Amino acid sequence: MSPTTETLTAERILEATEEVLRRHGPAKATVVDVARALGVSHGSVYRHFRTKAALREAVTQRWLDRTSGALSAIVAQDRDPEARLREWLSALFEAKRHKAGDDPELFATFSVLTGENSRVVDQHIEDLTAQLTEILRDGAVRGAFTPALDPVVTARAVFHATGRFHDPAYAGEWGRPGIEAEFEAVVDLLLRGLRAAGRSGA
Amino acid sequence: MSPTTETLTAERILEATEEVLRRHGPAKATVVDVARALGVSHGSVYRHFRTKAALREAVTQRWLDRTSGALSAIVAQDRDPEARLREWLSALFEAKRHKAGDDPELFATFSVLTGENSRVVDQHIEDLTAQLTEILRDGAVRGAFTPALDPVVTARAVFHATGRFHDPAYAGEWGRPGIEAEFEAVVDLLLRGLRAAGRSGA
Repeated sequence: MSPTTETLTAERILEATEEVLRRHGPAKATVVDVARALGVSHGSVYRHFRTKAALREAVTQRWLDRTSGALSAIVAQDRDPEARLREWLSALFEAKRHKAGDDPELFATFSVLTGENSRVVDQHIEDLTAQLTEILRDGAVRGAFTPALDPVVTARAVFHATGRFHDPAYAGEWGRPGIEAEFEAVVDLLLRGLRAAGRSGA
Repeated sequence: MSPTTETLTAERILEATEEVLRRHGPAKATVVDVARALGVSHGSVYRHFRTKAALREAVTQRWLDRTSGALSAIVAQDRDPEARLREWLSALFEAKRHKAGDDPELFATFSVLTGENSRVVDQHIEDLTAQLTEILRDGAVRGAFTPALDPVVTARAVFHATGRFHDPAYAGEWGRPGIEAEFEAVVDLLLRGLRAAGRSGA
């Protein structure tokens, strides 16, 4: 299919931008680079993204949304809240670890981009802690988690306490042999803290 | 007191090394720089530290030991293990925050040195988790903490779960207004997880 016959959507531009970043690193991905990769005029890219900063912000958000999008399916499951929370934390760790391990150069590139776009990163963390809050709230309603803890505050606490297993600053640790056991030990302790009194857990 | 009349101990050399690092940053602190600062021959420094690497490793260890030394007094207290654990974690956060905030340039210098001396950092983390293990073990003996958790594994889990509040990678967060509340929320959740069944806690 020739590039000129396909409709130029924002999504197509962002796909091409990620491909340009993958091939050329964080210094590239200007509107001109991306227009060239798509075989279109830079004017038609500008109609979707008015500045290079807007383009870089949007591609960063798309990269982060891919993780939170995959996790939202776990939040929606109708099953034991404790198992769901464990799976959600595992899936977050897995997703970040895959991004870091499968294509380390692209991961490094997006580390530069997230450093430039702290508003987008803050929103990503908001999205993730909102998902956690929903699991905690549902767990309290079902009697699995203690009602003594504020779900919003506690969701942030769970997110912070598991930072070693999702914060890109720790990517260097994720290949170490003991890391899975460390993850399990932290999650076990947190789940003990969340459990309603009288529930012995797994 | 003239420098030549005082006995040249390893401790005096390390004090002078830290002062050289404070004034000149991480690139300095060679044996020659330190000998000059002390007004002694570099031969007399070499008698204590045979290489620049040995000197830099020793000054890094001294910097880290200052924190673990202060914390060991809390471990030795004869009081409620939960209060002791809370105080220990607060004191660790305070100590790191002070080091980062009081003299940011020296903190940055030691970040370079800890990066060079991972063996010393690993030993520091071993020392700290051994202190935590002792509090957890004592808490289980006194019936405050659950005997269901392995104290060595759990000490590492507590250390990892509180990384946001002592890992220098997070130093940039420690001045933010919400950080104290975040710390309390994580510690509250961990203490709930550690508590023996039937204890409602603070």
